[in-house]
Amino acid sequence: MSYIPKNIEKVIEEFSKLPGIGPKSAERLTFYLLRKPDESIKNFGETVAKLKEGIRYCEICKNLTTEDICLICQNNNRDKTTICIVEDPLDLIALEKANEYKGVYHVLHGIIAPVEGVGPDELTIAELIERVKKGGIKEVIIALNPSMEGEATAAYIMRYIKPLDVKITRIARGIPVGGDLEYADSQTLKRALEGRMEY
Amino acid sequence: MSYIPKNIEKVIEEFSKLPGIGPKSAERLTFYLLRKPDESIKNFGETVAKLKEGIRYCEICKNLTTEDICLICQNNNRDKTTICIVEDPLDLIALEKANEYKGVYHVLHGIIAPVEGVGPDELTIAELIERVKKGGIKEVIIALNPSMEGEATAAYIMRYIKPLDVKITRIARGIPVGGDLEYADSQTLKRALEGRMEY
Repeated sequence: MSYIPKNIEKVIEEFSKLPGIGPKSAERLTFYLLRKPDESIKNFGETVAKLKEGIRYCEICKNLTTEDICLICQNNNRDKTTICIVEDPLDLIALEKANEYKGVYHVLHGIIAPVEGVGPDELTIAELIERVKKGGIKEVIIALNPSMEGEATAAYIMRYIKPLDVKITRIARGIPVGGDLEYADSQTLKRALEGRMEY
Repeated sequence: MSYIPKNIEKVIEEFSKLPGIGPKSAERLTFYLLRKPDESIKNFGETVAKLKEGIRYCEICKNLTTEDICLICQNNNRDKTTICIVEDPLDLIALEKANEYKGVYHVLHGIIAPVEGVGPDELTIAELIERVKKGGIKEVIIALNPSMEGEATAAYIMRYIKPLDVKITRIARGIPVGGDLEYADSQTLKRALEGRMEY
């Protein structure tokens, strides 16, 4: 590609490495940035470069934080007796945005996926079990994705937590709000029926 | 969003400013980067920050370059008597990839779009006319998108170039290769018929 300057070529290359961004999109994004003032481009780049600066895992819930303990675990208004287990911080963000849950979290940073070489030891499961063993936990809510790996991970976790005399629940599966019965797959419908509630 | 560190939040914000990237995608891209080694993240950021460094317009064709004159205009194997007019460098890249055109280019850096406040003076049309007036040009190929604005820009350019005794052509409109007659719109079919060629 001798017909475009190296700097531009390199940015296109970097963008194409991102998931869901093909070579055409990478070109479009790069040329979009090129039309922006120097200041915004610098700002974008430097912000990204600093992404991980000072970021670590919360000592309690393993969420990403810049302090020893994340803001959720620090918050005295949160119910520390309820732990919601999520796969990654994005799921935590999604739940927080729903503005319903008032307990604390435990971020696994992945799910058990033998095919991809992710076993229980790669996740924060040992820390979770330790946390529950310490006591003071009334309920553990499993909020993993309803996939094969999610189910397997849930089963693995339950095996260790069940004996600890803690209530274990999982978030409901069913028809999403705004969804259409007609287009729901049979597994979802089965779960929706199983999980039916009285009016 | 007190539940995620500021650095991360800022990167999500920067990504969401890009065209075609919504808040959910911005989150996903950011967390994808977070899982990468520090080195790759820094590299990504710094590459983007340097995007415009040393980039300027080619003195002849206005393509982006790091030298006074771009590599295409410098290339003695290119036919300097034929100029292909394109809207932006992305179109130039697309044409170069087709590996068919051996002439040189003129990059307008936009098209005439009165609604968006882009008039002929915002583009490099004056430089194009100057270039053709200087002589030595046999053919000008208009390779603008077949939109309303593209047609208007082509008409504007032709008004100035027609009197200069230069052959003016435009790239063919028709059914794209691999396209389906059945799904082509009537304007495209009309153009395809008009532009029919003998076997």
